[in-house]
Amino acid sequence: MNNTACKLVGCEFPLFAFTHCRDVVVAVSRAGGFGVLGGSSFTPEQLELELRWIDQHIDGRPYGVDILVPEHQALPTGKPLTLDFLAAQVPQKHLAFAVELLRQHDIQVEPADLLPQSLPGMMPEIGEALMDVAFRHPIRLIANALGIAPPSMIERARAHGVPVAALVGAKEHALRQVAAGVDMIVAQGTEAGGHCGEVSTLVLVPEVIEAVEAVRKVPVLAAGGIMNGRQMAGCMAMGAAGAWTGSVWLATTEAETSPAFQEKMLAATSRDTIRSTARTGKPSRQLHSAWHDAWHGSDSPGTLPMPVMSLLASPAFRKIERAAEAGNPKAMELLSYWVGQGVGLVHSITSASEVMRSFKNDFAEALMFLNEQVED
Amino acid sequence: MNNTACKLVGCEFPLFAFTHCRDVVVAVSRAGGFGVLGGSSFTPEQLELELRWIDQHIDGRPYGVDILVPEHQALPTGKPLTLDFLAAQVPQKHLAFAVELLRQHDIQVEPADLLPQSLPGMMPEIGEALMDVAFRHPIRLIANALGIAPPSMIERARAHGVPVAALVGAKEHALRQVAAGVDMIVAQGTEAGGHCGEVSTLVLVPEVIEAVEAVRKVPVLAAGGIMNGRQMAGCMAMGAAGAWTGSVWLATTEAETSPAFQEKMLAATSRDTIRSTARTGKPSRQLHSAWHDAWHGSDSPGTLPMPVMSLLASPAFRKIERAAEAGNPKAMELLSYWVGQGVGLVHSITSASEVMRSFKNDFAEALMFLNEQVED
Repeated sequence: MNNTACKLVGCEFPLFAFTHCRDVVVAVSRAGGFGVLGGSSFTPEQLELELRWIDQHIDGRPYGVDILVPEHQALPTGKPLTLDFLAAQVPQKHLAFAVELLRQHDIQVEPADLLPQSLPGMMPEIGEALMDVAFRHPIRLIANALGIAPPSMIERARAHGVPVAALVGAKEHALRQVAAGVDMIVAQGTEAGGHCGEVSTLVLVPEVIEAVEAVRKVPVLAAGGIMNGRQMAGCMAMGAAGAWTGSVWLATTEAETSPAFQEKMLAATSRDTIRSTARTGKPSRQLHSAWHDAWHGSDSPGTLPMPVMSLLASPAFRKIERAAEAGNPKAMELLSYWVGQGVGLVHSITSASEVMRSFKNDFAEALMFLNEQVED
Repeated sequence: MNNTACKLVGCEFPLFAFTHCRDVVVAVSRAGGFGVLGGSSFTPEQLELELRWIDQHIDGRPYGVDILVPEHQALPTGKPLTLDFLAAQVPQKHLAFAVELLRQHDIQVEPADLLPQSLPGMMPEIGEALMDVAFRHPIRLIANALGIAPPSMIERARAHGVPVAALVGAKEHALRQVAAGVDMIVAQGTEAGGHCGEVSTLVLVPEVIEAVEAVRKVPVLAAGGIMNGRQMAGCMAMGAAGAWTGSVWLATTEAETSPAFQEKMLAATSRDTIRSTARTGKPSRQLHSAWHDAWHGSDSPGTLPMPVMSLLASPAFRKIERAAEAGNPKAMELLSYWVGQGVGLVHSITSASEVMRSFKNDFAEALMFLNEQVED
């Protein structure tokens, strides 16, 4: 294939794989797709190591980086971003609630264990430093995962000849992104893992395409719930230039997801996710667990705004993950991670290159099936 | 086309139109699609008149009837179903809340105005009487809109040689329906108008197809959010045998929807719907209005179970509709009706036959577009 999305980023098959795992980026791009590394979970130093590794293993195939730079943050501005300053943003009541919740699940922690241990990647200052790193590498796409792509991202991308993509969950946001100058829109439905809006992929994709075409024709990728090549073909029949995927790569042998979480993924149905503010402060879809029941329950002090909720949730989930991996069954009840409703379509853990093969086969079969039905 | 869905019901183009309007049924079926009349909003006597009219105008084309027979009801059993008995089911607190809400919106009503005025069609006894009528006509499909198709529906349909369809919002329900003996599954995503689950169409359709194929291969229609032929083609690329639609027919000149509601539909975006219990007692998607804000607000006495909520909401919405039509702007704020997220794709009110033409054109274009992208 050589459609508008393929031409923009130089790939063969317009399947975009968002992942935090460098091995997945490499496997996808080497198989003709387009790997996108989620940069905001790394420090700038870590990101440099990841991208260097990718450059060494990707055989010159194209790849991209995604950075989460939200438009609105709840932190006081103008203060130096130290760990002490961040720790002071987490209210005692919320810290105590998290400590008690973990203890109830047989995870012995002290308040200090749940204080921020690193600067959150989703802060503007960190976003700039991550971009410094990204633009030093031969990336073929930079994506902003939440809100309008900041002017600095667009300016720096232009200067480096790198296209900019942005994720949107509503038509109005797509129009603002196009006006801001982005080169590709990812229309992400409510079924998606991670930050998402309320409109489903099936409605959002044609709605965004229609709105964007009336202004400036840029490729629109479909995202949210896409786990196989049949769904990808379906979205492209609706006019999408390709598919942007995330959850499907969490079920690969290469992924950063723990065996404990993969076990929960295999057991989950499409009804086992929740769109909740209890992890980052903004609504994001995750595997539903006892964590969400507690934070949305009647005893809860309420969830905190972005990025303060993450300051507390990130260290808590590191503890939960470690305890679950160690075989603590109560910790398993709390264990969660970002995943979309497509988790109901996951039945096994395979390699990323096997997922790529399946996508291509299923895509070809879907096209054949559709043509046959019409000719019938 | 002559695929499995077309063969089952004898239509040419597997577009199923659920509607409460006999004109839409006739226009769709005459144009090669398959009209399905929603029977539960009629008394048995009214349904007889509607079906007689359809038989006279449909030129022998196939059509179906949909009847809502829920598995679970909140009424005491064994009592005769009189209007007085039903009126006694509505708590005074809720009645007073509704009266006050309408008055706040310049609609002058007395409590007696909001008491049940007819037996609700969704009660099992009424469902049987509606089936008595339906099976006296040459219907080619009977559908159950909520929960497992009751044994009597399946037995009577078998005796008349009529296939049975059932709507489902989750994979588990699809498996139960197939075990109960239904001949076609309508997998309806959360973006759909009316009663719906939480899983999106894009995820639910492949999930249901996969689950059903492992048991007994019956055609699966996609439903929820489908407003045009591109989306229909997209769903069929995923393996659906056709599309089941509802909201798109509300925006036709023939529809039962009032001009006031059509005006609200044209102004709405895909984010203006709500999945709420405030109309029937079970979660159903509607245009979001001041009605929902009130019933889900802090002063609300809470919503009532099915069918009691309908006993109160139905007369209230008749009053609201009449006031809105008379030009009362506060009544317009309350006005609502069942509609899916696809309302964001409605830009004009046209005839049902024009909608059929567009669907066929868009379907053909989507197929061409998909084939071209691959060949590119």
